[in-house]
Amino acid sequence: MADERDPEGRAAARPMLTDLYQATMALGYWRAGRASEPADFELFFRRCPFGGAFALAAGLRDCVRFLLTFRLQDEDCAAVTLRALPEGSLAFPGVPLLQVSGPLLLVQLLETPLLCLVSYASLVATNAARLRLIAGPDKRLLELGLRRAQGPDGGLTASTYSYLGGFDSSSNVLAGQLRGVPVAGTLAHSFITSFSGCEVPSDPMLAPAVGESPRVDLAASVKLWLERVCTYLGLGVQEPHPGERAAFVAYALAFPRAFQGLLDSYSVRRSGLPNFLAVALALGELGYRAVGVRLDSGDLFQQAQEIRGVFRTVAAQFQMAWLESVPIAVSNNIDEEELARLVQEGSEVDIIGIGTSVVTCPQQPSLGCVYKLVSVGGQPRMKLTEDPDKQTLPGSKAVFRLLASDGSLLLDLLQLAEEPPPQAGQELRVWPRGSQEPCTVRPAQVEPLLQLWLQQGQLCEPLPSLTESRAFAQWSLSRLSPVHRQLQNPVLYQVALSEKLQSLVVNLSS
Amino acid sequence: MADERDPEGRAAARPMLTDLYQATMALGYWRAGRASEPADFELFFRRCPFGGAFALAAGLRDCVRFLLTFRLQDEDCAAVTLRALPEGSLAFPGVPLLQVSGPLLLVQLLETPLLCLVSYASLVATNAARLRLIAGPDKRLLELGLRRAQGPDGGLTASTYSYLGGFDSSSNVLAGQLRGVPVAGTLAHSFITSFSGCEVPSDPMLAPAVGESPRVDLAASVKLWLERVCTYLGLGVQEPHPGERAAFVAYALAFPRAFQGLLDSYSVRRSGLPNFLAVALALGELGYRAVGVRLDSGDLFQQAQEIRGVFRTVAAQFQMAWLESVPIAVSNNIDEEELARLVQEGSEVDIIGIGTSVVTCPQQPSLGCVYKLVSVGGQPRMKLTEDPDKQTLPGSKAVFRLLASDGSLLLDLLQLAEEPPPQAGQELRVWPRGSQEPCTVRPAQVEPLLQLWLQQGQLCEPLPSLTESRAFAQWSLSRLSPVHRQLQNPVLYQVALSEKLQSLVVNLSS
Repeated sequence: MADERDPEGRAAARPMLTDLYQATMALGYWRAGRASEPADFELFFRRCPFGGAFALAAGLRDCVRFLLTFRLQDEDCAAVTLRALPEGSLAFPGVPLLQVSGPLLLVQLLETPLLCLVSYASLVATNAARLRLIAGPDKRLLELGLRRAQGPDGGLTASTYSYLGGFDSSSNVLAGQLRGVPVAGTLAHSFITSFSGCEVPSDPMLAPAVGESPRVDLAASVKLWLERVCTYLGLGVQEPHPGERAAFVAYALAFPRAFQGLLDSYSVRRSGLPNFLAVALALGELGYRAVGVRLDSGDLFQQAQEIRGVFRTVAAQFQMAWLESVPIAVSNNIDEEELARLVQEGSEVDIIGIGTSVVTCPQQPSLGCVYKLVSVGGQPRMKLTEDPDKQTLPGSKAVFRLLASDGSLLLDLLQLAEEPPPQAGQELRVWPRGSQEPCTVRPAQVEPLLQLWLQQGQLCEPLPSLTESRAFAQWSLSRLSPVHRQLQNPVLYQVALSEKLQSLVVNLSS
Repeated sequence: MADERDPEGRAAARPMLTDLYQATMALGYWRAGRASEPADFELFFRRCPFGGAFALAAGLRDCVRFLLTFRLQDEDCAAVTLRALPEGSLAFPGVPLLQVSGPLLLVQLLETPLLCLVSYASLVATNAARLRLIAGPDKRLLELGLRRAQGPDGGLTASTYSYLGGFDSSSNVLAGQLRGVPVAGTLAHSFITSFSGCEVPSDPMLAPAVGESPRVDLAASVKLWLERVCTYLGLGVQEPHPGERAAFVAYALAFPRAFQGLLDSYSVRRSGLPNFLAVALALGELGYRAVGVRLDSGDLFQQAQEIRGVFRTVAAQFQMAWLESVPIAVSNNIDEEELARLVQEGSEVDIIGIGTSVVTCPQQPSLGCVYKLVSVGGQPRMKLTEDPDKQTLPGSKAVFRLLASDGSLLLDLLQLAEEPPPQAGQELRVWPRGSQEPCTVRPAQVEPLLQLWLQQGQLCEPLPSLTESRAFAQWSLSRLSPVHRQLQNPVLYQVALSEKLQSLVVNLSS
């Protein structure tokens, strides 16, 4: 966790952050003399989110941090062992994301905080991964959702895990400071509208980007460029809003090497665009290159096409070739559908800022993870409710991913922890979940999925960095067949039980 | 804020929790020599959430806490003035929930954290208020959503503000400890399934509730009662699951005065209910009264009716009248529609536990508050984008609620801060938003809505306690006409502009 600097720790995730019944049940176990019985819990989900066929496992780094700092009177997590899918792994229904072993009282108490730390993190990572799949590898995705999150920490979690899921950057400065998420940003309408145009810049002089030439009055230069731009675009020089231009000049003076314009405070075509061009060209004359424009309303795709067209002709007209490729960023309630439109063939949009729909996951705002007891005192346990959806799979488990010889994924196999692992090249009989019949499979490769992170409360190996987990997520997704990866009506990926696990289920159900 | 004990403060809400562009814009203002210009921002929403016609304002206590502790190098909020709707107020589109005044650079920086602290708080309070309206005043609503929230702090925010919005209690222990939210809970399936029935209780002896009689072996007494109950209900004594019964006994030994049963780990009718009755009656014999049962799957309404029927006949049969009225709690993905079904005429459900759908607000998971500059250097400012939905109302405002002589609400009036307040009994001409024509109104009462909380960084008066704000929310809702209060297709409540504000809008738009 070298890239995470949070000296205050995760103050909100502390032992008291739990449901009351965890505490009452703890007392119940204690009264029954069972507090120290060895127990195993598994954390999993029952259905992939958003109608898709996969999820990404995430939240492990927060769980590890929580467990390493957990203290409740004399109790700590010195007796807890944690196995888990590495962050960024593909996760499927019924496959444990976490496996927690330790004294019954203590591991019961951990239910609520662990669910809280894994459920939303995995949901938002999966959501981000879907948006990345739609956007393709080249468009830049910027997460802007802090203000739409469930309070400060919801925002921090969202920024961290949408980066893990495939976003390029976040506007959230704290996520950059604490988690190493690349931070990016533009400017807001309030900055633009705060200028009327009557302000006198305290110092309008700007030195050229390179060399020793004398400083130039940028505001005066912008005025000259505005006339040329307006003449070329067939606009009256009075049309562009003087306050917007003053804001652009102020921003350019503050950030000559990172000038960008927000174009839609008044009118994109008659004000934002010519004002931006005047400032960008004045800067260009001094050797600076503008880094972008942003649109936040209207038909974003259509406007981006038009703006790129104007950039091209203006670049040719004034011989500033770099202007052609100034990145165009868009934002404004972009969801999966709108994103697909924005990245269609030929789109001139370069950067897509997404807030609400990545952070709040409006298609499905919770993943519904559960944390279930699977064994206690060495005996498997199973919840046998009359609602078959809510039944659980008994026993502490091992999980293997079986692959074909071409590296494609065949299925995930759940078996009891004590069974020998499946062997590559050997045929085995398995029971696909939801099917009444077994089938046979001969994997060319077998990968164990659950990794040991904490043994008796000690970190066994350093967690990968957030950037490593992000790369792992993209690699994991690349191995998934397109039929499972597709976002609408995918083919479900198979999760199967070993014969032993299947018999145990049958025995305990009867 | 006497009921809030958070020595660690809101660690996640700190100055770095902001969007990068706030920092770059701050530098832009500074470079333009405008950092100290006096500015006013207003925080408001444009559309009521969930298709309703009202929202509840919430989040103020977190904003005040944030502002009082804000430090950024040498900067603090000593120059900031905050006016706001008291928490629990009815809020309507365009009416400022917060009004923030101070030096331009600083109040711009506050945008993201204030949006983050108000938006979700108000959303979840409004959502809770809707659920309370459906449930009516008598059913008890318990918030269980911590594990479905956006991380730990999302859970804390949700618990706090769903209580403010009208819930009775939360399962979140931290919300109880830090915010004084009443905490409640039952028990989980894992507690039940952790018992096989072969465990030997370390001490099965229980003293009677009152008096000096000798202790009784509760497990043995339960066994006797199970036979009577099974005989009476026509069940075989082997049918009820022994592990479930052992769990109930363990819980009863730990909490004889607060015994409750979770009935659906195996079969409600053939196991959970008879086991519960056996333990409850054994306890009853010792003078203890069970406090409840919970159902977490299946047809909750139907089962509650049947269970109440069984309680009644068993109460009569064994002459334990109190059993008739043991509260029945239900949970399991309850949304507005299911809640309406659960509280229909004649329902035997007493307590409704809601998690996901109160905390994540799946109908609309973000409120979409905005924070807009309305004046700078004493001059009104307005965003004039081509998207009419995104235009803003210029100038620092005062807001009044106009009431009829019968106390019913007529409309909310936005006017410029410098205008004299409207007078009760005097007719005035106003411009309803969205209408091209003015209308006249003669209020019998006039209530100013925005209250001064921070003046130059100093708290002017103590915030009401959370419980007071909760009562204020219910009182506020009670004054709203049913046509606006109804949850589906309500009549929109009118917000109007004064003539002066309307002319300013027209002037600045032209």
